[in-house]
Amino acid sequence: MAGRFITFEGIDGSGKSTQARMLAETLGARGIDVVATREPGGSPGAEQIRALVLEGDPDRWSAETEILLFTAARRDHLERLIDPSLAAGKAVVCDRFADSTRMYQGLRGPGLREIVDQLHALMIRREPDLTFIIDMDPSKGHARAKGRQTAEERFEDFGADLQVRMREGFLALAEDEPGRCVVIDGDRTPEDVASDVLRVALDRLA
Amino acid sequence: MAGRFITFEGIDGSGKSTQARMLAETLGARGIDVVATREPGGSPGAEQIRALVLEGDPDRWSAETEILLFTAARRDHLERLIDPSLAAGKAVVCDRFADSTRMYQGLRGPGLREIVDQLHALMIRREPDLTFIIDMDPSKGHARAKGRQTAEERFEDFGADLQVRMREGFLALAEDEPGRCVVIDGDRTPEDVASDVLRVALDRLA
Repeated sequence: MAGRFITFEGIDGSGKSTQARMLAETLGARGIDVVATREPGGSPGAEQIRALVLEGDPDRWSAETEILLFTAARRDHLERLIDPSLAAGKAVVCDRFADSTRMYQGLRGPGLREIVDQLHALMIRREPDLTFIIDMDPSKGHARAKGRQTAEERFEDFGADLQVRMREGFLALAEDEPGRCVVIDGDRTPEDVASDVLRVALDRLA
Repeated sequence: MAGRFITFEGIDGSGKSTQARMLAETLGARGIDVVATREPGGSPGAEQIRALVLEGDPDRWSAETEILLFTAARRDHLERLIDPSLAAGKAVVCDRFADSTRMYQGLRGPGLREIVDQLHALMIRREPDLTFIIDMDPSKGHARAKGRQTAEERFEDFGADLQVRMREGFLALAEDEPGRCVVIDGDRTPEDVASDVLRVALDRLA
């Protein structure tokens, strides 16, 4: 598990953040040196960019500017935390990464997914060793996400229709990249989901 | 002059900001509808990104992250102010634009100029109709810039050696793009420089 980069992706309310935390705790309890982090954010600079993007009027940034800001935040997170941790032999577990930008920003209009991918190829390049896509019926996920919404969470507030398209997008991604992505049924107890996640992580990376 | 985009570039202390202001005032006094703006910044969102980049520890961002942040600011400035103003038939006079990123960030290390150019090609594309490069002996410019330095101005605080390389870079740019760039000797009274600038602007754009 040393030096491995594991990400969790999924629609709002899928339970990915809970699962990311549970996996990091379980690995830590097994004596693995693990860094738990999240995006957008994850390093001091990236957290400041996160605040700039997520606070205020939802229309204050165009999709293109938002993609640039998230890519800047990711670059900082990568340089300051992810890459040094992997190089030091730690496992890194991250709640959201580039796939979230591919879906949340990439699906907002024509040509945007291409911009996300080109910026990623130019400025980020790093792909996870393993990505869990926590799958969830969008109507259930949306209800869960709305229940815990804070002012900062406009990032996760795009309505049910976009949630349906994002779920399809995540599933298509898993089909395109089976070596990296594993779809996990998130519509079960957190403990049942976590048990699947751990088994896959040990199978794939141990 | 309607719908024309004019930028001012040059090393620290070259007098470009003074010249940008003087040209905008002169054009305005002649009845031309002119928007005077600046980078980094120029729109409310871009000014917030400017503050994020320029405040705090000079090493808080890598050159790559800084290029992404400046490109995000430029995209916002372009969408919210520059493009709508040009489309409305106004002249836009901007103190610094993409050439400053090409020099200030592009000269900070190997491969960075290519990153600046690729991000520009992907996310900005807009080039000025006319760029004044206000040329100045770096030792004179540096002394002038240090004399008025504020805490925010680390952007302009790279020392004399980089000023020499940037001057060379700006002059090389003018040689590469004679249709867009005009070099003006900045080592004269502001009024003499402004008189040259106005003559060239009227010649090239009227």
